[in-house]
Amino acid sequence: MEYTDAYFMEQALREAQKAFDADEVPVGAVLVMQNKIIARAYNQVELLHDPTAHAEVLAITSACNFLGAKYLPDASLYVTVEPCLMCCGALHWSKIGKIVYGAPDSKNGFKKYTTQSPFHIKTTIVSGVLEEECAALMKSFFKNKR
Amino acid sequence: MEYTDAYFMEQALREAQKAFDADEVPVGAVLVMQNKIIARAYNQVELLHDPTAHAEVLAITSACNFLGAKYLPDASLYVTVEPCLMCCGALHWSKIGKIVYGAPDSKNGFKKYTTQSPFHIKTTIVSGVLEEECAALMKSFFKNKR
Repeated sequence: MEYTDAYFMEQALREAQKAFDADEVPVGAVLVMQNKIIARAYNQVELLHDPTAHAEVLAITSACNFLGAKYLPDASLYVTVEPCLMCCGALHWSKIGKIVYGAPDSKNGFKKYTTQSPFHIKTTIVSGVLEEECAALMKSFFKNKR
Repeated sequence: MEYTDAYFMEQALREAQKAFDADEVPVGAVLVMQNKIIARAYNQVELLHDPTAHAEVLAITSACNFLGAKYLPDASLYVTVEPCLMCCGALHWSKIGKIVYGAPDSKNGFKKYTTQSPFHIKTTIVSGVLEEECAALMKSFFKNKR
């Protein structure tokens, strides 16, 4: 059985919920190859005191470790929120096959800064999968902070 | 004695030379606070099979670990080559005080993709310090690859 984008985004949302529960900005990601999740990650900036520890970067590093490869052309990344400039650069270098994200991020998303696609030419981008659920978790987090 | 930008760039060049010797794209970085180097790093993408293991990212992570802090407003990063989009995003999140780079990178540097400054509003940017030496090491590396 071939899982849908929504199925894998649900899994990314579970990761985002873990971030939420740990008082981290609630972004989660899963990395998929051949219909299987090979890496899961959520934002750990606070836990690791590391501004680079975004879900996408951790998932890429984890997947590359697992595969022993620095490129991920046959993999798909599912992430709950539009990647920031750093993550989008990391995804560029990984030559990832497909990126699926949930909610847009008008404040920190890559679209704010870039004019041309910053991804590898062969990378497919899909947006808006489970957008409402992904956005709701972010809104709930920042509402609690105010 | 206050060290100059050229002094710290020399130190970053030493890191870049280590990358060169390890057959990695020769980019090196040092992170400085109060006139002292608190982190040194060079590109380790091949060694770690990790596309995110650029000198700048490794230096930021190392410095944040050392300080137990996720922001580096009082620090300066010296890097031999213009940061790519990923590193520039990482530097943005770190709120670093100052970025000094040597050679421009028209192929992968952040200027290719961005229209507005992607850095924190308080970050100072200095370019062209030991530019020739930094560029020469890159040229020599890629010449050997052809």
